[in-house]
Amino acid sequence: MSSQLRVTVWGENVHERENPLVREIYPKGMHATIADGIAENNEFDVRTATLQDPQHGLTNDVLENTDVLVWWGHAAHGKVKDEIVERLLTRVWQGMGFVALHSAHYSKPFLRLMGTTCSLTWREAGEKERLWVCNPAHPIASGIDRYFEIENTEMYGEPFAIPTPDEIVFISWFEGGEVFRSGCTWKRGNGKIFYFGPGHEAYPIYYHQTVRLVLRNAVKWAAPDPGKWIDSCPQIPADKAPQPLEIKGPRIHKEGEAGFR
Amino acid sequence: MSSQLRVTVWGENVHERENPLVREIYPKGMHATIADGIAENNEFDVRTATLQDPQHGLTNDVLENTDVLVWWGHAAHGKVKDEIVERLLTRVWQGMGFVALHSAHYSKPFLRLMGTTCSLTWREAGEKERLWVCNPAHPIASGIDRYFEIENTEMYGEPFAIPTPDEIVFISWFEGGEVFRSGCTWKRGNGKIFYFGPGHEAYPIYYHQTVRLVLRNAVKWAAPDPGKWIDSCPQIPADKAPQPLEIKGPRIHKEGEAGFR
Amino acid sequence: MSSQLRVTVWGENVHERENPLVREIYPKGMHATIADGIAENNEFDVRTATLQDPQHGLTNDVLENTDVLVWWGHAAHGKVKDEIVERLLTRVWQGMGFVALHSAHYSKPFLRLMGTTCSLTWREAGEKERLWVCNPAHPIASGIDRYFEIENTEMYGEPFAIPTPDEIVFISWFEGGEVFRSGCTWKRGNGKIFYFGPGHEAYPIYYHQTVRLVLRNAVKWAAPDPGKWIDSCPQIPADKAPQPLEIKGPRIHKEGEAGFR
Amino acid sequence: MSSQLRVTVWGENVHERENPLVREIYPKGMHATIADGIAENNEFDVRTATLQDPQHGLTNDVLENTDVLVWWGHAAHGKVKDEIVERLLTRVWQGMGFVALHSAHYSKPFLRLMGTTCSLTWREAGEKERLWVCNPAHPIASGIDRYFEIENTEMYGEPFAIPTPDEIVFISWFEGGEVFRSGCTWKRGNGKIFYFGPGHEAYPIYYHQTVRLVLRNAVKWAAPDPGKWIDSCPQIPADKAPQPLEIKGPRIHKEGEAGFR
Repeated sequence: MSSQLRVTVWGENVHERENPLVREIYPKGMHATIADGIAENNEFDVRTATLQDPQHGLTNDVLENTDVLVWWGHAAHGKVKDEIVERLLTRVWQGMGFVALHSAHYSKPFLRLMGTTCSLTWREAGEKERLWVCNPAHPIASGIDRYFEIENTEMYGEPFAIPTPDEIVFISWFEGGEVFRSGCTWKRGNGKIFYFGPGHEAYPIYYHQTVRLVLRNAVKWAAPDPGKWIDSCPQIPADKAPQPLEIKGPRIHKEGEAGFR
Repeated sequence: MSSQLRVTVWGENVHERENPLVREIYPKGMHATIADGIAENNEFDVRTATLQDPQHGLTNDVLENTDVLVWWGHAAHGKVKDEIVERLLTRVWQGMGFVALHSAHYSKPFLRLMGTTCSLTWREAGEKERLWVCNPAHPIASGIDRYFEIENTEMYGEPFAIPTPDEIVFISWFEGGEVFRSGCTWKRGNGKIFYFGPGHEAYPIYYHQTVRLVLRNAVKWAAPDPGKWIDSCPQIPADKAPQPLEIKGPRIHKEGEAGFR
Repeated sequence: MSSQLRVTVWGENVHERENPLVREIYPKGMHATIADGIAENNEFDVRTATLQDPQHGLTNDVLENTDVLVWWGHAAHGKVKDEIVERLLTRVWQGMGFVALHSAHYSKPFLRLMGTTCSLTWREAGEKERLWVCNPAHPIASGIDRYFEIENTEMYGEPFAIPTPDEIVFISWFEGGEVFRSGCTWKRGNGKIFYFGPGHEAYPIYYHQTVRLVLRNAVKWAAPDPGKWIDSCPQIPADKAPQPLEIKGPRIHKEGEAGFR
Repeated sequence: MSSQLRVTVWGENVHERENPLVREIYPKGMHATIADGIAENNEFDVRTATLQDPQHGLTNDVLENTDVLVWWGHAAHGKVKDEIVERLLTRVWQGMGFVALHSAHYSKPFLRLMGTTCSLTWREAGEKERLWVCNPAHPIASGIDRYFEIENTEMYGEPFAIPTPDEIVFISWFEGGEVFRSGCTWKRGNGKIFYFGPGHEAYPIYYHQTVRLVLRNAVKWAAPDPGKWIDSCPQIPADKAPQPLEIKGPRIHKEGEAGFR
């Protein structure tokens, strides 16, 4: 039995089957290339899952055995079943890490975790992107100097409609004149969340060595803490109160009742 | 035409019709009493809406003309239609304030804005609650001394599974021994959000003068800023880029396309 | 008696006296031009103060009658007396707004409020800066479109060693390739704090119409809330405890004592 | 050479020498008992330092070889030399963890890191304190159930004048009726900071098994990330800019100059 972090890379796997351009760059699918990048140094136990798999490949068993879930989706956000999203969120709240890549800013799980529109501006012109490290000793920037560059990228620009991040790891500069908070962290329940901007399917971005390093760093950072916060909303009866307590006044709820939802 | 803040108080209106105990306390419905408390000093233009109204009383027109929405629900969270929730969220992101009361911690809009489970512990024993001001000059605590008390309350206790609040205005002490972050603020998009703990339907809490003061303060605080952030995800074509830009490499998107969702 | 917000613009007033280049741009001193920009629409009651004034122009009386303090300093941070800094901080904690401009990132008051090094990278090459609005309906960005530009600026770049801002209003793009969080907010005690990047003394930046608009917006945003939180650390004697309480065990402190500091 | 985390426990060591009551509880000094609690399971390399040591025991060498600094002080905050405080802060910004205990809310390093007054209310009546876990799977609460109790404690109550914590791990309930955010985290530069409320010198609190567990958990949590952010404010000359850049306009600074402070 492995003690390595267990990573599941989820890919929508639509463009790479339907668009010759994307297929040429990612013949095995983007998820496979992302997974290769994460597995590169044999530090993690990496598997993949796709939209087309039964239950999108995210069965209870898979999620229960996933420490960090990495998500790439774009054209088919709406096809992800709500019940799978709920299942996934429950695991994030328990402590599973969630790494949202590029167009996953509009994915159902990310939208649900943020509680905002997550809109942005964009341009597909193959321009240069330079990612600046805002927080030099942050674990996700480990091994990266002051900045790194991606020669051809899709521009994602501000305003990025997210809640204030806990920490900003990267801000991007674009050749065409925009900026973007391209590396941000949050915590929801016990789950650590990282959004990473680069990753347009028309360019070979997931072969970029520093991008792959960021993915590996992010997976390590997003690893669950040892504990697990199982959601519940327990009634604490009066005779179990920490202080001696006598019931006063009327009551709506029955003894031992689970409460409304 | 009034220049007052326009407040809509939404009430689930179930207990007060079905439970004699609640009906006796709130004969016109809890929403009516909450609205009375907010309207007390004629500072606001207050209306009410309930679950039973067509579109739950939250038509496009009503929401478009609401500056702050106050929400009380408990037994029928699941009956609130998802499309109305989406409509409401859109308005929050544009700037409409949202005040979630008591059991609304489990309401659909609040869950969606928080992105966490919002679970807590609870006990219905009519015990005393003492709300401490953590932030003495916060507008929501205006006019309140170091603390105020509610003689009979339902206990809501930690852990309260929320994202770290922007500010904590109140923390409650309970006779039975628990504590609770009972007054918290967040911002999502341009909307200001306040959660306020007190308000169990079995006790006459919305007649309490200081509770009513908090509601009025919260409405003022949650008022929209002048601007409005209409969500969109615009493509910025290369010839509209702030810097001169030549298109490089292949493209997935068409000129002028709206992008995937 | 005016009911306008009372603004004090503090200027170090060193370069403009010693350097011909700066004197030519700001013949009356930078503080005067900044004050003119804020007073432009007669919305505020604006005065100025400088390092050379007795008590740096920040007497108890001046501070007690200042709602928002705007600060520009660069060459003489070390000459600002610590006792004046303490006095100023006390007022911020009570609710006075504080707007730190450009090189004030290294000023004593800003360093004390942040608790970090506030270091950054910089370059004086007269390059173009484009400030992007990250938060379109934020009051500080009111009246500004998607971005605005400053033709000649000093570059201030990431990493900017600040605590995570409450909100980021602007991020700057620089011609030379850097990015910078150039408009950030925090709260310390009851005081609202805004840092604004532009303002190098070698260029006429405080004559720029949009820069002046930002200053006016920032002053309005940083206005104190009505209440005032006077710092104290009161002993609450046992017989004044909210719950009946019998003293148990030994004691270090005397009845009515003020406590150690 | 040990690969254990290197912990330095700093104690003011005044009460325990001057007050017979405290000496009886902590005959070797409070710092020694705190250090024993942390070292209990041989997980860390623990040393102590006191106010009376040369340079307060915090030489460059000691700080350079400290991963986490634990701080207890009360009666002699003002005797801690400012230059030692600066040295210590520099290490926190580089990544050294800082755990502030009880009355250290008013210590110079904590005040400097927070940027607020850190005032609170207090009462020395030997009452009961119950610490609730607000964040069940947080590493600092690891191994603790829903709450734990301290039979005799000094009350520290709200309002606690701190910046909004990144996370609240514990909130305390007091027998006399108050509440307090008794376990809070922040980050300043790369340093992780934890404030923990319990620890009045008149009671044997640092012998309490769960308090000692919290200290060990806090030390692990506050461990530095691998990187180190050495403060500087580098000039990036025009010919080193990431984008080709021609110098425009006048200049105040000389080539290669270090900049003002």
